[in-house]
Amino acid sequence: MTDTIDKDTLAAARESARSRYDEYVAAGLKLDITRGKPCSAQLDLSDGMTDVLPAGDHTADPEGDARNYGGAPQGLKALREMFAPLVDVPADQLVVRDNSSLSLMHFCVASSFFHPLPGGEKPWAGEKVTFLAPSPGYDRHFAVCDELGVDLKTVAMTADGPDMDEVEVLVAADSSIKGIWCVPKYSNPTGVTYSDEVVRRLAAMTTAAPDFRIYWDNAYAIHHLTGEHDELASIVDACAEAGHPDRVFVFASTSKVTFAGGGVSFFGGSPANVTWFLARDGMRSIGPDKINQLRHVRFFGDTAGVQAHMDKHREIIAPKFEAVGKALAGDLGALGVAEWNEPNGGYFVSLDVVPGTAKRVVQLAKEAGVALTPAGATFPGGDDPGDRNIRIAPTFPTTDELERALGVLTTCVILAAAEKLLD
Amino acid sequence: MTDTIDKDTLAAARESARSRYDEYVAAGLKLDITRGKPCSAQLDLSDGMTDVLPAGDHTADPEGDARNYGGAPQGLKALREMFAPLVDVPADQLVVRDNSSLSLMHFCVASSFFHPLPGGEKPWAGEKVTFLAPSPGYDRHFAVCDELGVDLKTVAMTADGPDMDEVEVLVAADSSIKGIWCVPKYSNPTGVTYSDEVVRRLAAMTTAAPDFRIYWDNAYAIHHLTGEHDELASIVDACAEAGHPDRVFVFASTSKVTFAGGGVSFFGGSPANVTWFLARDGMRSIGPDKINQLRHVRFFGDTAGVQAHMDKHREIIAPKFEAVGKALAGDLGALGVAEWNEPNGGYFVSLDVVPGTAKRVVQLAKEAGVALTPAGATFPGGDDPGDRNIRIAPTFPTTDELERALGVLTTCVILAAAEKLLD
Repeated sequence: MTDTIDKDTLAAARESARSRYDEYVAAGLKLDITRGKPCSAQLDLSDGMTDVLPAGDHTADPEGDARNYGGAPQGLKALREMFAPLVDVPADQLVVRDNSSLSLMHFCVASSFFHPLPGGEKPWAGEKVTFLAPSPGYDRHFAVCDELGVDLKTVAMTADGPDMDEVEVLVAADSSIKGIWCVPKYSNPTGVTYSDEVVRRLAAMTTAAPDFRIYWDNAYAIHHLTGEHDELASIVDACAEAGHPDRVFVFASTSKVTFAGGGVSFFGGSPANVTWFLARDGMRSIGPDKINQLRHVRFFGDTAGVQAHMDKHREIIAPKFEAVGKALAGDLGALGVAEWNEPNGGYFVSLDVVPGTAKRVVQLAKEAGVALTPAGATFPGGDDPGDRNIRIAPTFPTTDELERALGVLTTCVILAAAEKLLD
Repeated sequence: MTDTIDKDTLAAARESARSRYDEYVAAGLKLDITRGKPCSAQLDLSDGMTDVLPAGDHTADPEGDARNYGGAPQGLKALREMFAPLVDVPADQLVVRDNSSLSLMHFCVASSFFHPLPGGEKPWAGEKVTFLAPSPGYDRHFAVCDELGVDLKTVAMTADGPDMDEVEVLVAADSSIKGIWCVPKYSNPTGVTYSDEVVRRLAAMTTAAPDFRIYWDNAYAIHHLTGEHDELASIVDACAEAGHPDRVFVFASTSKVTFAGGGVSFFGGSPANVTWFLARDGMRSIGPDKINQLRHVRFFGDTAGVQAHMDKHREIIAPKFEAVGKALAGDLGALGVAEWNEPNGGYFVSLDVVPGTAKRVVQLAKEAGVALTPAGATFPGGDDPGDRNIRIAPTFPTTDELERALGVLTTCVILAAAEKLLD
């Protein structure tokens, strides 16, 4: 982008940006666009769920009394059948657990150190283990690896998904590479949905590690922002067709469907992977919160009910994403100092500023009262080699707060670009 | 006990037992007294909890909106304050999490392999790790160790708790001994509440491992069966007073208070342990289900509300424990072929039969349609060296079913004793 920057235009823009910045600082703002949290209006959509079970309504079909232990090792059948088409995993290969799909991912990585995975010869304990991290990506994925002593190797994200030329060479050559993190639909933060070709190549590629796993975090499977829904090929089918049925662990949750923290999570995969997961999980817990699962069954009714609910989310948050696009285009479009995506779904806008200025932008914004996700957070180790990526999370603030925060942000992008390119 | 058995009396008892047994087999019974599950009437006590939050009631004080992420890393303050006196841990040293305290124990053991504990120099990965298993004990504790590659060393249970003479010698001599499993109140299965002296010695003993932990599973802290409540000394205080504040991890849950699987769990310990736990837990989850925590706050109101609720449980299950005592005494008391406890709380009666006959009793009962916990399950590896302990779980069946099952059980105890001693 910097090729196209006209220095005189940027210098002029800096003048007006300086005066705006001073006004922002003087105004004593306190705005936060750091994390992908639902706003209150989104949470209100699920308020009917808190009392959807009247006293005495506790019987799941066919499991029976959802209040007691046992009876549903994979989670309620009705809930698995409701979400199976949405997460593209057959209901009998799907497991429902409590809030936090992230904790399921942590559990799967941790358990791999104690028990061999299907296809593996031994547990990972004592071995060097590496996961590929398509970046920019999700910081909490990277944190799970840091927590468990797993090395991360950055690979590039393209407009179609991870750079498969790079991925294929790495996994073929190095048996310590045991996994890859993927947010395959409306990716965090770049909004990319993996192309059919990327899905096929992930499923088909030759891996040196016999127990390699794709951690397929389909967090935004149904989180559309427009009427034009991205289509994602079935990774479970692709892996089975490629002769690698056990290659993928699928994860999803309703954290951004019902209540963040009060939702349910899903694990899916081949029959062998489901057996492995249930065997590991069965040693730590007698079972999940089936009452909360029944709440979800009653609240949605069926798959169409979930989709109708997501349409209401979209009505609330799509205008916020439009506000982001409008502000970025209006304030920065003519200057060539930034690039960004306009996602069809998900929770983020990924903003690339002039290389070497992302940290400075975040610092300037902070000093003007606007909290942004730390620059670099979308890369392993918090280290963005280009120092240019900033993740914008528009859902939580009101549109008014968001517009003010974006005004600060674009002002800081201009100031930092000018410092870098003109001084 | 076998010293006191009169063989003529036993032989006569066998005759009538044989004819009863044939009748049981012919009746085609199907009874189950295997696991400590609440019965429907107990679960009904909490039915008011499913709709205790009307739509719009989602604000916790002081945390704010319980529907969203964040704001309560330790769990809701009101819930911590409500349960702090019940689990004997200060509210600010208590953490509330989702259903399944067992999964917290698993998480703590597993995390110890990746991160040093307070007091420890390095993680446990690559080391031989051993936990002491006072036995008879809880089979799922032992299963957590099996799952995570931790060796178990059996120590004897006495009427006051673990045999501390044995424990002190072992932990002082062997730095691979990193923990001990304790169910300190109304112990599973022997019903023992640890004496003040045992609590003091556990806290004060010299351990070769600097990161030794007592896994204090206070599962039955408030699960009284009589008006005479056992008193348990504070392990947190005892450890602090002994100069070992970080020695204990406390666990508890409401699985047998509200809904099995739909309750909340607690982790407690020293400030350093709480910091360690939150640091580890924060890498796998953005936070617990605060909505379910708020449900518990609203449903109980205060600590006295919890206690009043437990009185209602007691009214339902105490008669079942009385039925067990009556059947065992009536059928076996005069024969000297068994010993058992009459607990003041908890979920189990521990029955010791003639050594070498427990497996046979369970097999005979199975053939007559009564499922018992597998003989040996209360010992590490499922191996009861005396083959004599059988755990009876009276809560789930109706009193009628329970009485029929006990009739079968005592009949089988007599038959197995006679086989062993007379044939």
